[in-house]
Amino acid sequence: MPVITVEICPMEKEKKAEVARVFTEEFSRISGLPKESIVILFHELPYEDVASGGVLLADRK
Amino acid sequence: MPVITVEICPMEKEKKAEVARVFTEEFSRISGLPKESIVILFHELPYEDVASGGVLLADRK
Amino acid sequence: MPVITVEICPMEKEKKAEVARVFTEEFSRISGLPKESIVILFHELPYEDVASGGVLLADRK
Amino acid sequence: MPVITVEICPMEKEKKAEVARVFTEEFSRISGLPKESIVILFHELPYEDVASGGVLLADRK
Amino acid sequence: MPVITVEICPMEKEKKAEVARVFTEEFSRISGLPKESIVILFHELPYEDVASGGVLLADRK
Amino acid sequence: MPVITVEICPMEKEKKAEVARVFTEEFSRISGLPKESIVILFHELPYEDVASGGVLLADRK
Repeated sequence: MPVITVEICPMEKEKKAEVARVFTEEFSRISGLPKESIVILFHELPYEDVASGGVLLADRK
Repeated sequence: MPVITVEICPMEKEKKAEVARVFTEEFSRISGLPKESIVILFHELPYEDVASGGVLLADRK
Repeated sequence: MPVITVEICPMEKEKKAEVARVFTEEFSRISGLPKESIVILFHELPYEDVASGGVLLADRK
Repeated sequence: MPVITVEICPMEKEKKAEVARVFTEEFSRISGLPKESIVILFHELPYEDVASGGVLLADRK
Repeated sequence: MPVITVEICPMEKEKKAEVARVFTEEFSRISGLPKESIVILFHELPYEDVASGGVLLADRK
Repeated sequence: MPVITVEICPMEKEKKAEVARVFTEEFSRISGLPKESIVILFHELPYEDVASGGVLLADRK
């Protein structure tokens, strides 16, 4: 049942696959819960939908 | 004010409409809160943005 | 894998149990996904942690 | 570290930039935390992914 | 329907009330949506439930 | 800016510290982003606030 949500800017599918694999293995190891019970959700946000310090990332580039 | 967020893989609009209708009616019946106060948000995620057991759903198919 | 998050003010355990049962049955019926794959999370928030129309619910009572 | 998530229907980039600027300045002023520590995330949802009163916004129009 | 979620460390009720009031007024002004439609949720997290740079805030103090 | 939210049942502080450390190091390694930019939030939920297969975890024990 653990649900891990990752809010990120656009990321290649291969990197998301590696994050999902590593996070699941590590969380299972630390918590003792089975890997099958762990759900990971990626929310991929465009640069105009994220702000840090009051400025959209799209306006920083 | 109750806010219900539904994280799903792609789903037809008609099914989302039925989920929204049924969840709102049932939650209103059980809680006693008016239907108008209930907000439902769907986060529709592509198969490469969801993992179960450490594997992206896109890599399972 | 569907994950349904319900943000609510304090609610009796029996009502949460009924919401969980009904939402899971209905979502499974509408989506065709097995009930075992559906996770429901309740975020129970105190009245001073929810605002509507700019006013905390704790200040409305 | 404060993370502010804004769930909205589609909104122009300029308005999101203004929301990000104002929310960051005001939250920094009220909390005393530096603006650089504040993250704002917009989840822009299509009208068929939001329901109020049991009806999708896409079916209200 | 806009739903604004604020993830914070413990904060006095008066400050949350001011955040709720100001965010609602400013979001209504910028978006043109009525204040009554805006919901704000605070998720107040203990210092051991937040990490930055890989370290729990509780271990920083 | 990446924000990782972990929804879990009660977990010892030491395990949360290890999850925070490992997730931050691994995400930084895979994404190339600096560790300082990564925020991790734990939402620790009581057993009566989580359901799987339509049954609250509190009613499973």
